[in-house]
Amino acid sequence: MNLPKKVHIVEMCPRDGFQGEKTMIPTEKKIQFINMLSRTGLNDIQATSLVHPKAIPQLADGDEVLAKIDRPAGVQWKVLVPNLRGLERSFPYKPDKINLMMSVSESHSRANANKSVDEALKGHAEVAKAALDAGIGVIGQMSCFFGCPFEGEVPWSQRERIIRAYLDMGVQELGLADTIGVANPRQTYALVSLVMDMFPGIPFSLHMHNTRDMALANILAAMQAGATAFDSAVGGLGGCPYVPNATGNIATEDLVNMLHEMGIETGVDLDKVIEAARFAQTLIDHPLAEMMVRAGKRTDLKPAPKEQHKVG
Amino acid sequence: MNLPKKVHIVEMCPRDGFQGEKTMIPTEKKIQFINMLSRTGLNDIQATSLVHPKAIPQLADGDEVLAKIDRPAGVQWKVLVPNLRGLERSFPYKPDKINLMMSVSESHSRANANKSVDEALKGHAEVAKAALDAGIGVIGQMSCFFGCPFEGEVPWSQRERIIRAYLDMGVQELGLADTIGVANPRQTYALVSLVMDMFPGIPFSLHMHNTRDMALANILAAMQAGATAFDSAVGGLGGCPYVPNATGNIATEDLVNMLHEMGIETGVDLDKVIEAARFAQTLIDHPLAEMMVRAGKRTDLKPAPKEQHKVG
Repeated sequence: MNLPKKVHIVEMCPRDGFQGEKTMIPTEKKIQFINMLSRTGLNDIQATSLVHPKAIPQLADGDEVLAKIDRPAGVQWKVLVPNLRGLERSFPYKPDKINLMMSVSESHSRANANKSVDEALKGHAEVAKAALDAGIGVIGQMSCFFGCPFEGEVPWSQRERIIRAYLDMGVQELGLADTIGVANPRQTYALVSLVMDMFPGIPFSLHMHNTRDMALANILAAMQAGATAFDSAVGGLGGCPYVPNATGNIATEDLVNMLHEMGIETGVDLDKVIEAARFAQTLIDHPLAEMMVRAGKRTDLKPAPKEQHKVG
Repeated sequence: MNLPKKVHIVEMCPRDGFQGEKTMIPTEKKIQFINMLSRTGLNDIQATSLVHPKAIPQLADGDEVLAKIDRPAGVQWKVLVPNLRGLERSFPYKPDKINLMMSVSESHSRANANKSVDEALKGHAEVAKAALDAGIGVIGQMSCFFGCPFEGEVPWSQRERIIRAYLDMGVQELGLADTIGVANPRQTYALVSLVMDMFPGIPFSLHMHNTRDMALANILAAMQAGATAFDSAVGGLGGCPYVPNATGNIATEDLVNMLHEMGIETGVDLDKVIEAARFAQTLIDHPLAEMMVRAGKRTDLKPAPKEQHKVG
């Protein structure tokens, strides 16, 4: 198997994981959680989204979170900004990069952001310019890249058009998101290969939701095609609140476990991530969507039972 | 990606799925469920285990289940038998094949069957001879093939010794089980390749538990190494009741969905399997360990919302 030696992980829980949670998480708990994350070896964290407070009440405390989290050396901080107002709000906190995000499907773009694809691109171009002028890196993420809940898979030409528009506005990295967890490994391999062939040298991260349990298989296929960066969320939290049933980023601890078991480096301390997931469990009102907290590591060997079971 | 055109699925829910369930499932409900399964296109079903009734009370009705299920044309029926007594009980129901099962690890063999590996092999040799004499096919399954909860991964020499002993006693097919869900894709690719190299032409099925969410990734890796047969259980039920936290066969519906999405044929009707999973949910006292019932198929497109969400 053709696999990378090292993989880069982008931690999404504080933004994509939390944004759809119905129980309001106290700001100081978010800060405590993010401070745990930034000491796990996860060195690339999307801390929040600076959207209008009414749009996503759970993230209405984004400014306070950004102002108060620890900023240990070597950790890169990202903030999702929907517009110029959000970008300007981010300036005092000096994020390393901002994430732009739009859907590649017209109907999902309208449902999620109340904008056509062209309107979203026009707005993003202004934000990208202002961010680059301010010395902040810009990532262009595309939701529904592998399929849309309303339209199915959108034509490649539409996705290519958006990538080119992103690159034209100065975006330095791409994000390819399987927002609703419909990607399959053959498709993932093909699309990663296509993006790498058509846009050589452009860094990208894959954002695979585990809605149909295929995220780790998709990540395996993507690595075989050459991908080396993946988004994930501690606890497997998240999913777009405006997409039916779109629950669950791939859990960081499940991803890190698979990669480490395969001998692929991440720089992340799995035990500390599992500890962070246990803490995340105390903040939400439903079970985590992950396996490692429940199952434990392979290397956590059990003592053999002293009393033998008799199966007769 | 080097992938097969068609994959064979062995349905395990009526035995491996149900055996650890604490709520006793009425016999007539099991029969109704199995009759649903045998009309989904699943053509290879392990119907029950003829163990001592006290060993696994949930399967104490194995004889009645075998006597009363429909036997539609084209479906192969398997029964797990632990010993000669179990084999003899199976004769009236004319199973196509029996499954022998033992652990490749000494400590797990003792914990699970109260037998050393050599004692298990000796007993299995007698059962295999009697089954073959009666014209019944014999499958030799190995639990903890990818790792043991007490010992970790056992030496390859131990696994090779058991495979050779199985083949010496006339076993026609092998089963390689990741009983506790510790296999990773690189290991799976390597072990499948090794088994196929050392025992060319011997059919085998992989039995991957989803305990750490790696089952579909492991199945993808196994297919790339040449594997074409996989065990699964509707609803993702199952797991060895004597292994801590060993919950969850890979769900048949999640496996079939991935394979079909990749263009790999199974002969199985996914809608009917999802319907069977919904019925299985009514028989147990906890949520299913699967995704397709919750998420629905990719092709179940939703109407775009009429009222647009305003993210501001």
